[in-house]
Amino acid sequence: MTAAIIGTGLIGGSMAIALKAHGLADTIIGVDASEAHALRALELQLVDQVLPLKEAVQAAKLVVMAVPVDAMNELLPQVLQAANQQQVVMDVGSTKEPICALAAVCDNAGRFVATHPMWGTEFSGPDAAVKGAFSGKATVICNKEASDADAVALVEQIYQKLQMHILYMTAAAHDVHVAYISHISHITSFALANTVLEKEKEEDAIFELASGGFESTVRLAKSNPAMWVPILMQNRENVLDVLNEHISQLRKFKACLEKENYDYLRELMEQANTIRKVLNRN
Amino acid sequence: MTAAIIGTGLIGGSMAIALKAHGLADTIIGVDASEAHALRALELQLVDQVLPLKEAVQAAKLVVMAVPVDAMNELLPQVLQAANQQQVVMDVGSTKEPICALAAVCDNAGRFVATHPMWGTEFSGPDAAVKGAFSGKATVICNKEASDADAVALVEQIYQKLQMHILYMTAAAHDVHVAYISHISHITSFALANTVLEKEKEEDAIFELASGGFESTVRLAKSNPAMWVPILMQNRENVLDVLNEHISQLRKFKACLEKENYDYLRELMEQANTIRKVLNRN
Repeated sequence: MTAAIIGTGLIGGSMAIALKAHGLADTIIGVDASEAHALRALELQLVDQVLPLKEAVQAAKLVVMAVPVDAMNELLPQVLQAANQQQVVMDVGSTKEPICALAAVCDNAGRFVATHPMWGTEFSGPDAAVKGAFSGKATVICNKEASDADAVALVEQIYQKLQMHILYMTAAAHDVHVAYISHISHITSFALANTVLEKEKEEDAIFELASGGFESTVRLAKSNPAMWVPILMQNRENVLDVLNEHISQLRKFKACLEKENYDYLRELMEQANTIRKVLNRN
Repeated sequence: MTAAIIGTGLIGGSMAIALKAHGLADTIIGVDASEAHALRALELQLVDQVLPLKEAVQAAKLVVMAVPVDAMNELLPQVLQAANQQQVVMDVGSTKEPICALAAVCDNAGRFVATHPMWGTEFSGPDAAVKGAFSGKATVICNKEASDADAVALVEQIYQKLQMHILYMTAAAHDVHVAYISHISHITSFALANTVLEKEKEEDAIFELASGGFESTVRLAKSNPAMWVPILMQNRENVLDVLNEHISQLRKFKACLEKENYDYLRELMEQANTIRKVLNRN
């Protein structure tokens, strides 16, 4: 099978590696708005050749769209228009409602399968692509009934070969869930980094003490704004709900300290400890 | 040298392993308020024998106090009273102002060296002790001039052998810095766990999507309240300052989304990205 990867960065590049490694694609065509990225993807042998969007789509049985979610809105209509009834177009973006709504009014809408493999790192670009990225993780297929059965079947086959655990949900449910499970973590990391950087202006030595705990909570603050601004923009209402809830949870900790109510502080921590059962499950 | 470890949990146990591994102690005596923990520490061969506090202190050249910071306040006067001018007592606690103030009015105050090795995990108890825990990390010695020169020299020798990078600062400066670099990370993790657990009451499937990003930001929410309530209690004012700053940083993200000011949102993220230079340095 020939696959076209639109966007040869962290996710697209890792997907290219995985498709080859599992014998799902023999030829991979890369498409990237950045010429430097496209060349680097070739150099790293993530892709076999680089073509303009339309030619790449026409040459491929499978098109994987791995661009920032704002670029998805621009490119999906073009890709679906260039596609035929034998081809399958899937995306791997972090928001699902806007793209599913858009796909519904495009030509060849049934050829599109909306997906979101739950894997990523704080790095970006072709050099961030890694081998074995998706194995053992969850992936979501959204609004399955809006896609042609054979298109869904191919995508399912791909994710099964990649050893991913497939979940099915509506685009609306997906977007609520990722606001809690992914988007808020990024905002807290960005905000935590800015909190500490603010203090660094006064005190030089502050980072000399940074330990593993700090590093893990702030790791996501290195994430790429070009990817994350459009995600938060598209999932604005869900993210605002979660952010309000999170601020009110933080205010509980603040009130405990202000009122020196250490029994309630312990209760809040014990409640948080129950996250263990969840983290151990995954 | 014979060393007594008061508190044979995560830090005390790891310190016991390190002292033996680097040839700093030939005999290690364990002391623990929990009989189960003391027995487990023996079983795991973290310690060679278990004794009551006073006997352990009298038998040891070096006493390492690795108990929660509230228990420190209770035990330090007893330990220093039982000590003589040839012995050295060091602590490894996460707050320094209260214990330094207390030590100053104890018998044998000069024998006490206030330290904080910047290493830990979210686990606790003797089973959480690991080999090679401290190597390559920073450690702080506070209010050095309040300790006898030979006591400081022994502690410096220990941390050098453990391959730690020693920093010197006042207890007051230490407590400000750890509020930013450690204590706030724990609060944000606890609060993030509670934010998501709150939502889980309505929606079962929410954790099926949890990925690596969520896990790293919420990892510290598994931390032990028996350790963390006293830390936040003792560092209350600094922690409240940082928590207020953090909530106001989160409000900036909230305002960007509410007002759909995505240029400023990108700026906030780009600013947070500069944390890279710090994380890469450590």
